[in-house]
Amino acid sequence: MAPTLHGLASDPEVEALLSDDAQLASMLAFEGALAAVEADAGLISEAAASAIAAGIAAYKPDNNDLAAGMIRDGVVVPALVAQLRRVIAPDHAAELHRGATSQDVVDTALMLQLARIVPILIDRLMQLERGFAALVERHGTQPLMAHTRMQAALPFTVADKVATWVEPLARHRMALSSMRRELLVIQLGGPIGDRSSFGGKGDAIARGLAARLDLGLATPWHATRDPLVMFGARLAALAGSLGKFGADVALLAQTELSAVTIEGAGTSSAMAHKANPVGAELLVALARHTAGLSGSLGYAMVHENERSGAAWTLEWLVLPPLITATGASLLTAQRLLKALSFRPSSP
Amino acid sequence: MAPTLHGLASDPEVEALLSDDAQLASMLAFEGALAAVEADAGLISEAAASAIAAGIAAYKPDNNDLAAGMIRDGVVVPALVAQLRRVIAPDHAAELHRGATSQDVVDTALMLQLARIVPILIDRLMQLERGFAALVERHGTQPLMAHTRMQAALPFTVADKVATWVEPLARHRMALSSMRRELLVIQLGGPIGDRSSFGGKGDAIARGLAARLDLGLATPWHATRDPLVMFGARLAALAGSLGKFGADVALLAQTELSAVTIEGAGTSSAMAHKANPVGAELLVALARHTAGLSGSLGYAMVHENERSGAAWTLEWLVLPPLITATGASLLTAQRLLKALSFRPSSP
Amino acid sequence: MAPTLHGLASDPEVEALLSDDAQLASMLAFEGALAAVEADAGLISEAAASAIAAGIAAYKPDNNDLAAGMIRDGVVVPALVAQLRRVIAPDHAAELHRGATSQDVVDTALMLQLARIVPILIDRLMQLERGFAALVERHGTQPLMAHTRMQAALPFTVADKVATWVEPLARHRMALSSMRRELLVIQLGGPIGDRSSFGGKGDAIARGLAARLDLGLATPWHATRDPLVMFGARLAALAGSLGKFGADVALLAQTELSAVTIEGAGTSSAMAHKANPVGAELLVALARHTAGLSGSLGYAMVHENERSGAAWTLEWLVLPPLITATGASLLTAQRLLKALSFRPSSP
Amino acid sequence: MAPTLHGLASDPEVEALLSDDAQLASMLAFEGALAAVEADAGLISEAAASAIAAGIAAYKPDNNDLAAGMIRDGVVVPALVAQLRRVIAPDHAAELHRGATSQDVVDTALMLQLARIVPILIDRLMQLERGFAALVERHGTQPLMAHTRMQAALPFTVADKVATWVEPLARHRMALSSMRRELLVIQLGGPIGDRSSFGGKGDAIARGLAARLDLGLATPWHATRDPLVMFGARLAALAGSLGKFGADVALLAQTELSAVTIEGAGTSSAMAHKANPVGAELLVALARHTAGLSGSLGYAMVHENERSGAAWTLEWLVLPPLITATGASLLTAQRLLKALSFRPSSP
Repeated sequence: MAPTLHGLASDPEVEALLSDDAQLASMLAFEGALAAVEADAGLISEAAASAIAAGIAAYKPDNNDLAAGMIRDGVVVPALVAQLRRVIAPDHAAELHRGATSQDVVDTALMLQLARIVPILIDRLMQLERGFAALVERHGTQPLMAHTRMQAALPFTVADKVATWVEPLARHRMALSSMRRELLVIQLGGPIGDRSSFGGKGDAIARGLAARLDLGLATPWHATRDPLVMFGARLAALAGSLGKFGADVALLAQTELSAVTIEGAGTSSAMAHKANPVGAELLVALARHTAGLSGSLGYAMVHENERSGAAWTLEWLVLPPLITATGASLLTAQRLLKALSFRPSSP
Repeated sequence: MAPTLHGLASDPEVEALLSDDAQLASMLAFEGALAAVEADAGLISEAAASAIAAGIAAYKPDNNDLAAGMIRDGVVVPALVAQLRRVIAPDHAAELHRGATSQDVVDTALMLQLARIVPILIDRLMQLERGFAALVERHGTQPLMAHTRMQAALPFTVADKVATWVEPLARHRMALSSMRRELLVIQLGGPIGDRSSFGGKGDAIARGLAARLDLGLATPWHATRDPLVMFGARLAALAGSLGKFGADVALLAQTELSAVTIEGAGTSSAMAHKANPVGAELLVALARHTAGLSGSLGYAMVHENERSGAAWTLEWLVLPPLITATGASLLTAQRLLKALSFRPSSP
Repeated sequence: MAPTLHGLASDPEVEALLSDDAQLASMLAFEGALAAVEADAGLISEAAASAIAAGIAAYKPDNNDLAAGMIRDGVVVPALVAQLRRVIAPDHAAELHRGATSQDVVDTALMLQLARIVPILIDRLMQLERGFAALVERHGTQPLMAHTRMQAALPFTVADKVATWVEPLARHRMALSSMRRELLVIQLGGPIGDRSSFGGKGDAIARGLAARLDLGLATPWHATRDPLVMFGARLAALAGSLGKFGADVALLAQTELSAVTIEGAGTSSAMAHKANPVGAELLVALARHTAGLSGSLGYAMVHENERSGAAWTLEWLVLPPLITATGASLLTAQRLLKALSFRPSSP
Repeated sequence: MAPTLHGLASDPEVEALLSDDAQLASMLAFEGALAAVEADAGLISEAAASAIAAGIAAYKPDNNDLAAGMIRDGVVVPALVAQLRRVIAPDHAAELHRGATSQDVVDTALMLQLARIVPILIDRLMQLERGFAALVERHGTQPLMAHTRMQAALPFTVADKVATWVEPLARHRMALSSMRRELLVIQLGGPIGDRSSFGGKGDAIARGLAARLDLGLATPWHATRDPLVMFGARLAALAGSLGKFGADVALLAQTELSAVTIEGAGTSSAMAHKANPVGAELLVALARHTAGLSGSLGYAMVHENERSGAAWTLEWLVLPPLITATGASLLTAQRLLKALSFRPSSP
């Protein structure tokens, strides 16, 4: 709501990979690869595949028409395919998108996008882990008061405190790494998800498509979204772990404890003496926001029949802000970590 | 995620009122009105108020600096006030924002924005109610099979069916109307919400501010957000009622029932014979999305102390998409209603 | 999960009103009243109404059979009606439940139960408001440090702090009072919600039923649940306000602030020196739990057609724990308030 | 809310393993094993371990006192330890619970309980997978109309339809199996989670404890709950997959499609001709309920400091109903699958 709230909770790198342009590029990659493997499999001619590749290379999107198609059809692919066919040599235009359905395009495009986003998240996690290790190196042996149930408990060390922040990050990182195998797979099912529209060559085409797009192979998953929903749950858990880091920092930074200092902490429009733990608070807010979005994503599990427009659209509404908020959480944690010092005199 | 998904679930009119520009204009309206009433109350001089008004009139925002301030301070107001003070005559610059705190500005600006959004929602509800009345006029006496628990039950009429769609809309409309009194109030508390920063004239200044901004009067509500959370719940309930309309239409439009036709229904990239109930499905998706966001907004109730950065930021993350999705739901329902006919032969 | 967690977050008084016995009694009250008003309206004979009243008075439930019916039919009413008919004089047994549907019974019974629960919640709110007033009387003028964004801000008084705790309670109380008119209404629609099953006398019977059961009159709301969903949102907002009270107390009770003392605070199995703010933490947990449940309840808005088993069942799964948790939150707040003192020396 | 709703959505086998009695037994197993390994490690004497074992064997809980302790301390362990010490030979009573904290007991007990529950869920999944295989054997080659976006699309077969129901189940089953290694671990940290309370022998004691209790070894996870939150997400995804099965069955069972028959479908109190797909609807309701609970569980990630009473209590409020609802979903799916046939004549 604030003019620049978007700046506060944004992640330009991830947002670019979720942008309309990025999706369009991924959908074109799908259509091009599909034509190539369909030619390999003999479903369409080599000439058709070449004409399709040339058409895709020359294609300039008419965004207004795509937007109108989106509203009319609930999915952008019919309009996109129609536009593409107009720039493909007429004899071959009909071979574009042969056997495929809109969901094959959109879901595979999403996977191509996620295949670029997941390594960014993993990389940021590794950077954070290194940053926490450096923090331990600088301050690890300093004594610190542990608190349980909001009460001072017993003294331990900064290293003990940091351990609870960093340990879950390795788990999230490994889970994201292993998800790359399960989650990042092609979607290829045809109209009703049974690959019957590929002239008996559906499985071979699927294998070729996966190889060309460097994605995993999977049976069609038009209506079975559990890997995507579990991906969302993992993102929320990741942001939740960073929210715990933020909550701790905000507590440690309280005036009465002053166990940490945050360089460049927020100023107040009314009270010059304050140093607000802005990044720490933002981590808490993003943890709660992602938890809520992850819960909502769960509602997209109930796909009616072979494709649910309602469930699929819900996924579109929920997943991008969930990914972006997780990315923003990682960026915020990096910033906060860089600014964070434990005060020598504590406890 | 789709290139033009934004188009599918967008509401340009409401989004404009939630934009950075709209918020900035509202914040400037707050600062100008505050200076004027502080001059009326004798807290600052008339000359200061005039200088402030002139400064605000001449002000051109430096958006990069506002964005940087947002990240640094977690709220845009310190940067905004600093920018404004640079364009106010130096003798009077310090009187800008006198006694106020960032939250006074942001919360009151939000209320000015909501004061323009709520009537739009009410107006759309009335249009929908009229549209449903016209539908009843056209088709009301046609017989229709009622269904309970997903089974054909007994015949009734189109009018009976439409009654369950339209009846909740009047409730939502009246609730939004009555909320205008409770919800749309100024925020004026000063740094810690006790109005002690206004030289003993806080209550008078609050009264003047409310009158000038055409908002209700309220004691400071920095940390008590229940009216805003209940507003969010009402929006989700509204979108939920429209989701029920959408779910019914999607069921009635099933090929095997064909009880309704939707003019211009969605086309498929793979199956030319299909007429997908896109708008109906979108209403269901928006109902679920808003329910989830409303639940998340509830987590913003737990404000620590006199102001919680974490809870307040969560509100910023959740409320704008909740409002926009509700607006989009109303637009979608209008489109769907226009396209909807009951088939004479049914049941 | 803890052996006596149930004790920690329970509300025996409210739970009794939500028990199987309470629901059964309310359903019998519905059936008895319905027969009486149907006799008044001439739909059934006076002899039938007397036989039904006698049967209900003599009725002993066969709980195993009710449970089996619940699983078979998804609603207990068919089994209940069958049992009741066996204890009504055979000539009149068929007149029991005349024109009504299961949902008429269950929904009206719920309203009879809520009609007893809402005043309890209101009464507890008033007690809390009085308790906070007494706290202000004892400690109101004591100085206290205000905190914004987790940082010490400026001094104010205990009265200022308590004002943010107590003010929302009056709003919740008034909202619950006004809900009694809108929410607590009979359900009477017959199989498909159009009252066509009452021989043209449906509206008169509904008026009589409302009068006899001391509930409001409403058109059938089988598939329009917004008042119930908004009731749930109000409960969550109420528990949210108490969660804010809890969060503040836990922060004030921190060892390093020691601004409050909680008599009888929790002991630790490992650290004898600790005084854990157990009730304060529980209020926070209940605030978050009720926010989540309220979000889930929103998903029950999308009723397919004239009655959705899925949406209605979801309501049954979510609403009772939401009501009980709100009741437990009020009880916990009362206990915490009684034990709470502000330390004179702070700051 | 219905007298026997509990029956509708219950799971007696799982509920027994989550009962007070089951938790108490698990906590006693923890205390006994801890004493034994502490004697092995030389932290306490063999005589003390024997006295503790004898005391535990002879122990009869005073449930009222445990309940009072729960409310006072927010966790049952202090009261439990006090009761146990009264039945252990006085010379050795103090050695009970040596070095441990309440959370060590409660969390490890939970893992012992989950270690019995998870195999039940896995077993039920395998049974379901077999049941679906049998359904394919009976009806797999029958033609069936596929539906996308709620419209008839193209014909496929029953085997294709069942494939989308059964495929995710194997994923959930394998995920639960692999979770047994990561999730089902001991908790042993002592008061502040650093094992400093075990006289330098904490890691050895932890190893011994894990071996004795047949649980995995892990560093203390008092405040890092991501494996538990991801377990909850998996349960919701599982119930979500079954919800998709339920939604499909309810759609296929519509009177106008009659593609399936459900033996013993629900009767109506008002319409004798109806056969309500009660189990199918319940699966949808449980899918939505578990999605909401899983979202709420995510809020328990933000543990303040070394132990958050608020976050931990939220976990207690949310996890047991989430587990039970998932168990009930599996039972309901089993019942529905047994009753389900595809009609030969469809499409």
